[in-house]
Amino acid sequence: MIVAQAPKVAEKTAANPIDRLHGLLEDDVAAADRLIHERMGSSATLIPDLARYLVDSGGKRLRPLLTLAAAAACGHTGAQHIKLAAAVEFIHTATLLHDDVVDASSLRRGKMSANMVWGNKPSILVGDFLLSRAFQLMVETGDVGVLHILANASAVIAEGEVLQLKSANNLSTTEDDYLIIVGAKTAALFAASAESGATIAGAPGETVSAFKSFGHNLGVAFQLVDDALDYSGRQALMGKSVGDDFREAKVTLPVILAYKRADEDAKRFWQRTIQLGQQRDGDLQRAIDYIEHTGAIAEARDQAYRYVRQACRALRPLPPGSLKDALMSVAEFCVARAY
Amino acid sequence: MIVAQAPKVAEKTAANPIDRLHGLLEDDVAAADRLIHERMGSSATLIPDLARYLVDSGGKRLRPLLTLAAAAACGHTGAQHIKLAAAVEFIHTATLLHDDVVDASSLRRGKMSANMVWGNKPSILVGDFLLSRAFQLMVETGDVGVLHILANASAVIAEGEVLQLKSANNLSTTEDDYLIIVGAKTAALFAASAESGATIAGAPGETVSAFKSFGHNLGVAFQLVDDALDYSGRQALMGKSVGDDFREAKVTLPVILAYKRADEDAKRFWQRTIQLGQQRDGDLQRAIDYIEHTGAIAEARDQAYRYVRQACRALRPLPPGSLKDALMSVAEFCVARAY
Repeated sequence: MIVAQAPKVAEKTAANPIDRLHGLLEDDVAAADRLIHERMGSSATLIPDLARYLVDSGGKRLRPLLTLAAAAACGHTGAQHIKLAAAVEFIHTATLLHDDVVDASSLRRGKMSANMVWGNKPSILVGDFLLSRAFQLMVETGDVGVLHILANASAVIAEGEVLQLKSANNLSTTEDDYLIIVGAKTAALFAASAESGATIAGAPGETVSAFKSFGHNLGVAFQLVDDALDYSGRQALMGKSVGDDFREAKVTLPVILAYKRADEDAKRFWQRTIQLGQQRDGDLQRAIDYIEHTGAIAEARDQAYRYVRQACRALRPLPPGSLKDALMSVAEFCVARAY
Repeated sequence: MIVAQAPKVAEKTAANPIDRLHGLLEDDVAAADRLIHERMGSSATLIPDLARYLVDSGGKRLRPLLTLAAAAACGHTGAQHIKLAAAVEFIHTATLLHDDVVDASSLRRGKMSANMVWGNKPSILVGDFLLSRAFQLMVETGDVGVLHILANASAVIAEGEVLQLKSANNLSTTEDDYLIIVGAKTAALFAASAESGATIAGAPGETVSAFKSFGHNLGVAFQLVDDALDYSGRQALMGKSVGDDFREAKVTLPVILAYKRADEDAKRFWQRTIQLGQQRDGDLQRAIDYIEHTGAIAEARDQAYRYVRQACRALRPLPPGSLKDALMSVAEFCVARAY
């Protein structure tokens, strides 16, 4: 079910669902934030400088929020979930740093990306440091269950990124290929974030699975929306450059769908711009037009909604509670942002 | 307790000490090799292709050998040390992949480096995958003690690499700075390799410390020799390009010592080539000459010997055994290769 968004007037009180979830977990969020800043410290001062640049750049901290919410919803009383939340954020930050080097990106969250400010070398090495720091934090929980979940997610993310490399410039990439990549590079960490929160709380198997499924489906929806927004003017408002995927000749769902429905002219256009990577002025606008006209964006959003509904369905059997409600609203909001 | 290993009769009698140690641990080495190849598998076929290129390129596998030797010397009977050995090799391979991107190296173990064959993007991402795979392997041992040791080492390595970035082009780098960098980027993994092997075997605290100290001191010696060889003609025989550090304006011990002892002419030379990074034909030979004439290479080797003696001293209190002898010979051999 699609929840109607509260109009902007009520913003301060109602805020958006992510802020509302932040509010419900205020103390945990503050503790995780402290730990994140504390543990990115190093005598190699370049590390905290560069890490802080990214960590404090106004990301939504969605993944650690899932961990904290799942742990709290499952009645966790200790403080180990704070370590997991920090670990999850570090894994995410490490992948952002390496992604931006791999994609030669120039913009991240509306600022110059770290590789542009500090160069590729520090971005690679600080990413390695943060990934290692994430493992240290997990190990400190002493919970082998969450260690399995997060170490596995970390490997799957890297596999997803490698698969994505192969799909670039490749118009024979299918929807299934695309969903496998998204499941690995994005949804695996969403799933592990929620699953590890429930696991550290000692929740029973079905509850852990419910949170894992919620995270996975939310993660797929999130990426579907992200990829759709890359061909949308709204993207510019979010501080991300529009057309990044197009310029990098990534074959995302909007392109896959538009190519499938293309006439001969459009097919030649996609082959030139994506397959051969030969792009010139005006091509991005033409790509956006093709994608709009073939209904590719609308279908990508519909697919995202289907995943959100699946995410919410996964939580439904759990006992009622404000955290459960907030998580479901967050999931709906993640797709609603596409409009 | 140190278990005496029966030497395999058919042992290639003399061989070099590393081969001899391999021979003593033949079954374990074979099992680790199988596991390494098995666990670098992935449906993203680029991963095993690229990983195999590096893993099968004739490296000495010194770090996993330390793990296997320490575990065997401490009487380990299970199979968990095999997982640790594979994990240690994966951590090392991941750092090599990222190092070569960071240094824009073109040669590794006498072959074109992976970043030259596959490009930087796959090298970064496959490095991430192998680091994650290493954590999965450690987690599978279920031993939180070794997890602490290896997760910590992994973070320290990245810190060392970042510190090294800062020392490039910087002639005010001191011997102490240099030793801190070497201790982190190289010796930390040598130490953790040996320490984790003894730990998984359940060895008492002093024994674990002895192996850790052995690994650390061997690691420092190893890097000192490596850095000396980079200004030596012998390096070419080992399949590594000579002068890599010079071209990258890295401030290693030979440069630190030569600069300290430089006359005005030589000082200007080092400032131009290292501080400003302005190098021209003939500069490498001139650098080698300065380093030879100031006795910098000889002193670097002397320092390496001091660390090797300290490594051997660490093992001395342990009960006698062929593995202990072999490890001490390996340490001596690592410096002897510099002549």
